[in-house]
Amino acid sequence: MNDKKPVIAIDLMGGDDDPLSRLRAIKSFLLKEKSFKINLFVNQDFYKYQSKHFANLPANMAVIQSEHSISMDESPLVALRKKRNSSLSMAIKAVADNQADVILSAGNSGALVAFAKYWLKPNAPIERPALATVLPGFPKPTLLLDIGATLEYRAEDLYALAELGAEIAPQLLACGNHPEVALLNVGTEHIKGHDTVQQADRLLQNSELNYLGFCEGTHLFKGYADVICCDGFVGNIALKACEGLAQQLQLKQPLNWWQKLFCQFNDVNFNPAQYNGALLLGLDGLVVKAHGNSNESDFHHALIRTAEYIKKIN
Amino acid sequence: MNDKKPVIAIDLMGGDDDPLSRLRAIKSFLLKEKSFKINLFVNQDFYKYQSKHFANLPANMAVIQSEHSISMDESPLVALRKKRNSSLSMAIKAVADNQADVILSAGNSGALVAFAKYWLKPNAPIERPALATVLPGFPKPTLLLDIGATLEYRAEDLYALAELGAEIAPQLLACGNHPEVALLNVGTEHIKGHDTVQQADRLLQNSELNYLGFCEGTHLFKGYADVICCDGFVGNIALKACEGLAQQLQLKQPLNWWQKLFCQFNDVNFNPAQYNGALLLGLDGLVVKAHGNSNESDFHHALIRTAEYIKKIN
Repeated sequence: MNDKKPVIAIDLMGGDDDPLSRLRAIKSFLLKEKSFKINLFVNQDFYKYQSKHFANLPANMAVIQSEHSISMDESPLVALRKKRNSSLSMAIKAVADNQADVILSAGNSGALVAFAKYWLKPNAPIERPALATVLPGFPKPTLLLDIGATLEYRAEDLYALAELGAEIAPQLLACGNHPEVALLNVGTEHIKGHDTVQQADRLLQNSELNYLGFCEGTHLFKGYADVICCDGFVGNIALKACEGLAQQLQLKQPLNWWQKLFCQFNDVNFNPAQYNGALLLGLDGLVVKAHGNSNESDFHHALIRTAEYIKKIN
Repeated sequence: MNDKKPVIAIDLMGGDDDPLSRLRAIKSFLLKEKSFKINLFVNQDFYKYQSKHFANLPANMAVIQSEHSISMDESPLVALRKKRNSSLSMAIKAVADNQADVILSAGNSGALVAFAKYWLKPNAPIERPALATVLPGFPKPTLLLDIGATLEYRAEDLYALAELGAEIAPQLLACGNHPEVALLNVGTEHIKGHDTVQQADRLLQNSELNYLGFCEGTHLFKGYADVICCDGFVGNIALKACEGLAQQLQLKQPLNWWQKLFCQFNDVNFNPAQYNGALLLGLDGLVVKAHGNSNESDFHHALIRTAEYIKKIN
């Protein structure tokens, strides 16, 4: 890339909120971040219907029209078969074709994973891709994976996931080259948990990773380890439970300044929106998934994070 | 019982903290709650060594000495085979023998479940017991189960768990006789999730329960449903993740009064200690599990909750 501006491919259609709210987020992002270029993938019907919103776009923004788009409740396998000309599929293909450095979508997670696997080459050690996110923690952040790409893991998959996490963590966190790795479980003792985590624990104890053993849910925000691994079902639910709790604690607007002050004092920020933008790992290309229900502000945060990923990950 | 005081059997030895901190919690509980009787199960060596702390006990408190106690990292199956004369086992047996109305322990969860299954008769509809807790929520609380008794469920087990939750919820919550039930998953759409939750969803759709469908982690504290069901692995990790987050938000002591005020304004209290004391369901006897790491104050809260369970559950 060197002298070229990094290109972010965005599937504008994916997400629960109005695509125009994401378009506003993109425009305001580009006002500040002039060192990026954005290729926007938009359903042609939507583009025609909302053409006035696509007039006078910033110079570093291009629109590519697609035949289809994928709804949030659509079957990923059906989408994969019938909608290769969708905004999501085309945006991912742009990364595969080296026309973009990263793809960002707030769309259907299953379809995102399916198309990413279809267009991008697998990148060892894992067989199926994993979604990862950096959790705010005190005294240090933690990379949690998988948070929803692959719902069920065998012991050897968890082992490979730990290897993958340990490989990527030094690029994302200031943790040095031997990140501490832990497996998420219902207790820290080696006798705890079901067969799968028990077997994975034994495999990891004999690995060359800096493996700490099991950790519990309480450890996620405590900087217990640099990398914490679990299957996508558990990771997704644990993360969303925390987001739900954080949202409840922000319910009443007048109290927000307290919380801001609180977070300032604690050197941490538990506003889940600030941590929007999970990374799909295990593929030869940068794929970022924003929250399905991202509003304008959330999507803006996801864009900021996407830009950070480009800078950090080679 | 009628004119008799309800009896709480307590395994004093179980837990990470010093047993004497739990003893202090029990004494201060009894100072306020004179309408209960406590039977305390204590390892004989500990009793001898700390005899001065067992002098001058309140009149409504009795000590029963045991031969063994069970450590937190002990194998439940080994404990079950070798330690039937442990404080935990004897305290649970007291409920089975109608000498106590409820057993409370902060001890080894696996051993608690193992001895509870051994001494107490199963109580349909579920095959294996489930741990349940009431989550603070806004606008209403939610009964979450399983939070760690049974780590893996088949679809038909999740179905039975939903039936059990719907049966007990009216006694624990002000939710009427047809509680809303949901299954915890990675998305609300019927296509989401792995095979087990997919099958359980189909079973529940054809049931007579007031079944809402899937819910996500974000819904746990939002009063989305009266009852939310998941396997014990997921429930334990999701709950502990939220507890960890809540603990982080209380890290710095000087800020506590803000949070208290915050909670007061929001009609909710997210202090996890206040929600200490999970209920083991599916057995013919009242079994309450306090957090393993309960300190004096946490254990006091668990006692208060145990007393509430006796009043609410017949």
